[in-house]
Amino acid sequence: MLNPITEFVGTAIGDTIGLVIANVDHELHEKMGIDPKYRSIGIIGARVGAGPHIMAVDEAVKATNTEVLSIELPRDTKGGAGHGSLIIIGSDDVSDARRGVEVALATLDQTFGDVYSNEAGHLEFQYTARASYAINKAFGAPLGKSFGLICAGPAAIGVVLADTAVKAANVEVVSYSSPSNGTSYSNEVILTVTGDSGAVRQAVSAAREVGLNLLGSLGEQAVSTTKPYI
Amino acid sequence: MLNPITEFVGTAIGDTIGLVIANVDHELHEKMGIDPKYRSIGIIGARVGAGPHIMAVDEAVKATNTEVLSIELPRDTKGGAGHGSLIIIGSDDVSDARRGVEVALATLDQTFGDVYSNEAGHLEFQYTARASYAINKAFGAPLGKSFGLICAGPAAIGVVLADTAVKAANVEVVSYSSPSNGTSYSNEVILTVTGDSGAVRQAVSAAREVGLNLLGSLGEQAVSTTKPYI
Amino acid sequence: MLNPITEFVGTAIGDTIGLVIANVDHELHEKMGIDPKYRSIGIIGARVGAGPHIMAVDEAVKATNTEVLSIELPRDTKGGAGHGSLIIIGSDDVSDARRGVEVALATLDQTFGDVYSNEAGHLEFQYTARASYAINKAFGAPLGKSFGLICAGPAAIGVVLADTAVKAANVEVVSYSSPSNGTSYSNEVILTVTGDSGAVRQAVSAAREVGLNLLGSLGEQAVSTTKPYI
Repeated sequence: MLNPITEFVGTAIGDTIGLVIANVDHELHEKMGIDPKYRSIGIIGARVGAGPHIMAVDEAVKATNTEVLSIELPRDTKGGAGHGSLIIIGSDDVSDARRGVEVALATLDQTFGDVYSNEAGHLEFQYTARASYAINKAFGAPLGKSFGLICAGPAAIGVVLADTAVKAANVEVVSYSSPSNGTSYSNEVILTVTGDSGAVRQAVSAAREVGLNLLGSLGEQAVSTTKPYI
Repeated sequence: MLNPITEFVGTAIGDTIGLVIANVDHELHEKMGIDPKYRSIGIIGARVGAGPHIMAVDEAVKATNTEVLSIELPRDTKGGAGHGSLIIIGSDDVSDARRGVEVALATLDQTFGDVYSNEAGHLEFQYTARASYAINKAFGAPLGKSFGLICAGPAAIGVVLADTAVKAANVEVVSYSSPSNGTSYSNEVILTVTGDSGAVRQAVSAAREVGLNLLGSLGEQAVSTTKPYI
Repeated sequence: MLNPITEFVGTAIGDTIGLVIANVDHELHEKMGIDPKYRSIGIIGARVGAGPHIMAVDEAVKATNTEVLSIELPRDTKGGAGHGSLIIIGSDDVSDARRGVEVALATLDQTFGDVYSNEAGHLEFQYTARASYAINKAFGAPLGKSFGLICAGPAAIGVVLADTAVKAANVEVVSYSSPSNGTSYSNEVILTVTGDSGAVRQAVSAAREVGLNLLGSLGEQAVSTTKPYI
């Protein structure tokens, strides 16, 4: 790409692309179902990864003057068991939208840290001490509280991880999704939890240990996509 | 996997994993929509294959003191045209759930026997003289009666196989599924039939012959995943 | 395939197969939800490609005595970001259905011309001066008017292309689809437009230029599947 166009912000892991539109066309605004008060939008999309992108955008809206407008999860991962993502953030000014996209892109290396995969599937774990608007919109988790995500594909492993997590610590279940309830027919079970910060971490850690063991039974030892952060 | 965890039962073809939970957490029970009277559950899940797993679980519930609680079909097959699976069985006692999962895993070599694939797609055929609760739950087929399944991906081939099957013998159609009706947007047409045992076998056999011919037109001769059983 | 069966018409790019059934079984007719007045059906199905097949069938129904009965879009592309297809056309006579399928198959080399792909995703552009019944059924575009389609996967790129297209010329938006609205959870944004013929072409061309630039940022330069026609 010798001459990057105005809308291009950058790329990242997972075939992620970050884009902005300074002034969204009026008719398109309406067709997209976006409040016209957001003149500028930022777009974060990927072939591989949904949780990492939701977490990264959560940091972006904390750090910048932007709001999460929509989160859509295609059934993708380039032949894998999970989702891709299309997340749109809005702002009054294109520089804010651009900054939001930049923060999200820069955060992906971290949020892919506890995504582990082998030839049979993947595991994903996320944790934050303070959930913001992206996590709230995607999962209904309470704002400002500790949040954990436990996910596995094939989905069967996720069922056991969900049970492991809720037994490991005193956490409250926010959402439980499975192939035909709450996912886009992905081959995953996704549990999200809230509660005391230490308890949420403990639930996630316990599930991660069991998950690595179980996914390993179907292939090689699953390895982190980047570097574990939890 | 040096130290298998308690929940692990075994693995099988199609990236299938079999698991049990002895006492499902109370809150998770509710979130999963499972009747709390089933303290123990067995879990059979796969990246590749739905029909083979439904048939295998059908044998498992015939042979053990378990019940089918849910059948979910992710859009998977690792880049192929079909489904993966997540099937949950319930019991009062974990030894029953474990036995049910073991029977299902042991049956998969047979039920993958009439799954044929090449680089362009796949064909699947199933037959049983006596349908039980898994088949009933998945397709609405009458209990205790002969049952046949005819499936092809790409879906176009499945349309012709469905027509071939119902013309080949005096069978009754139980269900007809296509990409946007009754599948999880898989690229398949799936016909299920019931009727006299000989007629069902004849319908399935006629469709299989035509299917191998048609799928072969898009690539190499499609071959059985294990060993044909019908 | 040494002895092609009666129903076989031919194959084409994208693992496309064309088939006919001279007299659809009465019970199957009903289960498929097809008006029984169409005794004969033609079937066009593919693992890879939906837009190219809709456009090709649009030409087929213009050129032959057939009608479009159904268009279904599985989530496929053999691990890619888009759809496969299952399109059924109907006629009184099998020779008409066969002719319709033949025309569609023969048109695919053209309609794949502005499908560009690389390892990260794909772009698709379509244009016709006069939309017919397949385009009308699939997208709700007005009959007999100029029609353009702009599509990209990953979907993020498609958002920018949609904005580019509607700003480039005075066109009217017919439909805007995204992963969870109007697609089968594919990782695409698909915009369709109508209007003055020159304006539609201009909108499509402007989007194509931006699309090739953006998709190129995620990998190699995307290349045409066959030969550009717009």
